[in-house]
Amino acid sequence: MTTTMNKQWLLASRPAGKAEAANFRLVETPVPALADGQVLVRHHYLSLDPYMRGRMDDAKSYAQPQRLDAVMGGGTVGEVVASRNERFAVGDKVVGMGGWQQYAVIDADQRGVLNKVDATFIPLSAYLGVVGMPGVTAWYGLTQIIEPKAGETVVVSAASGAVGSVVGQLAKERGCRAVGIAGGAEKCRYVVEVLGFDDCIDYRQHADPKSLSAALKAACPSGIDGNFENVGGTILDAVLQRMNAFGRIALCGMISGYNGQPIPLAQPQLLLVSRLKLQGFIVSEHMELWPEALKELGTLVASGKLKFRESIADGIEAAPEAFLGLLSGKNFGKQLVKLV
Amino acid sequence: MTTTMNKQWLLASRPAGKAEAANFRLVETPVPALADGQVLVRHHYLSLDPYMRGRMDDAKSYAQPQRLDAVMGGGTVGEVVASRNERFAVGDKVVGMGGWQQYAVIDADQRGVLNKVDATFIPLSAYLGVVGMPGVTAWYGLTQIIEPKAGETVVVSAASGAVGSVVGQLAKERGCRAVGIAGGAEKCRYVVEVLGFDDCIDYRQHADPKSLSAALKAACPSGIDGNFENVGGTILDAVLQRMNAFGRIALCGMISGYNGQPIPLAQPQLLLVSRLKLQGFIVSEHMELWPEALKELGTLVASGKLKFRESIADGIEAAPEAFLGLLSGKNFGKQLVKLV
Repeated sequence: MTTTMNKQWLLASRPAGKAEAANFRLVETPVPALADGQVLVRHHYLSLDPYMRGRMDDAKSYAQPQRLDAVMGGGTVGEVVASRNERFAVGDKVVGMGGWQQYAVIDADQRGVLNKVDATFIPLSAYLGVVGMPGVTAWYGLTQIIEPKAGETVVVSAASGAVGSVVGQLAKERGCRAVGIAGGAEKCRYVVEVLGFDDCIDYRQHADPKSLSAALKAACPSGIDGNFENVGGTILDAVLQRMNAFGRIALCGMISGYNGQPIPLAQPQLLLVSRLKLQGFIVSEHMELWPEALKELGTLVASGKLKFRESIADGIEAAPEAFLGLLSGKNFGKQLVKLV
Repeated sequence: MTTTMNKQWLLASRPAGKAEAANFRLVETPVPALADGQVLVRHHYLSLDPYMRGRMDDAKSYAQPQRLDAVMGGGTVGEVVASRNERFAVGDKVVGMGGWQQYAVIDADQRGVLNKVDATFIPLSAYLGVVGMPGVTAWYGLTQIIEPKAGETVVVSAASGAVGSVVGQLAKERGCRAVGIAGGAEKCRYVVEVLGFDDCIDYRQHADPKSLSAALKAACPSGIDGNFENVGGTILDAVLQRMNAFGRIALCGMISGYNGQPIPLAQPQLLLVSRLKLQGFIVSEHMELWPEALKELGTLVASGKLKFRESIADGIEAAPEAFLGLLSGKNFGKQLVKLV
């Protein structure tokens, strides 16, 4: 019997400011024998997401920091290749948090750790994106915080990304005007022509908040009622200037400055003047709503109404480079690593 | 028949930065004869409130700017001294928005413009404070935005003021730990010893947010679950550092810098990291909840459970000076001007 070898990326060191390739270390270890209740999953795709950067720091955040010298955490889809758990059979397609590695041994008795998925009408990779965590993130922020009414205007930053692209399409489904903000003409074209947003602003054409605010005014003639914020900084500053009274902001992501220091919010008094609601959230804390979200997202994907795009890096070795590219906006659509 | 003369304060000019006495002009005009449907109210008390400063500017805000050369707007209580309206009789005690003047002629047919009040168990002046707009402001932010649960910690800035004092007492009624922030040892002593807050921090002892944050940590050993924010700036910066996950911030007031420029929020990413909800509000936009609020506030005042304190300036002539004092924190409790 041959031993299966498993390539894994560990966190080798914490970034001093910008994350870099030297923060990761590739190792190869034998897959251990399964204990009772465990299953062995061979990963087909690994998801790379911006939240992983935050976990690389040892700072107070919503998630525990990633441990040093441990396998980098991350969402995965794959196939059960061995099972000592009666709930899972060899051949089952599954989604879980298998991490940056080719195989994962999972204690599958714990509820929710590993979930079977149906890849008949929905591609397996989509369970890491549009019908996975990013899709549910979009759904939650839009439906539970922004609560848009038909005819309202919803603005989303990082609009071509895994989350933003779903926000705008779901807003259109609800009869809203959807306006994206993205980096570069190609992404903006995609957001309007393929995803069906009403407009998209290339923030690279607007160095200061004033210029961006003027572009938003042109794209949102009736003002902004809902904002799904993936970026923060000067983009949020500009959006705030255009928010209508009683507007809602779902705060999903915020960048920091080059050295990791916070970027101040320039005009917080607008939150009062315009009587805005701003709410930060993390979708994994609202698991009770996932079934409802996945039902809508899955139906829209299977019927071809909800478009998505993937940026696929090839092979486990490519993970760090693809991740660093994601952090600098080089990806175009949901960033994945293909492992088989 | 003698003509009744009416002393009135007009807005003479808009402030360039700090408001000053020269922005106001005192005039005396004869009270006109009543038309059908009108009543004449003799004011007993005028309310002075921080929101008036915002209205003196010609900037975008939630309220229309105060018009130049018009009587300064403001809440008043008084007595009907003449009536050509069947809903009001001479002798009725009434609350309304009579403005900075001794008398007001009111078109009393419009619903809500003038309301009769019962001064049997509640002093007339209290209808401008604890059972008026400031009290309902406190009630709304606490019950509708912060929604505190027993055992949680609620922090309120400007804690000895007309709004803040009610926030803390209502929080205590609901089984919370109430911690105030106020300026000076005397106010802090009052907040704890008379109002019954658990603790009060003198922000004048803490020049930078770090020092204030440390004081908050000591006063809130279990962190902060709810914040009623009347001040903003470095106080809000410090509070944000101590907010627990899923905390709620009711944004009621924010100061600006000396020249009227906004004060940035230093660490907006904390709103995301701690999954906070922050909501700006203006109580006059939620009139449907006033009856419920006033019922609780009135019952607590009549039974002596809800304490309040007034700072009373004497005579219409004193209004501008009292108002400028309010803006610099010289008042101690609800600022009123006694007009009879």
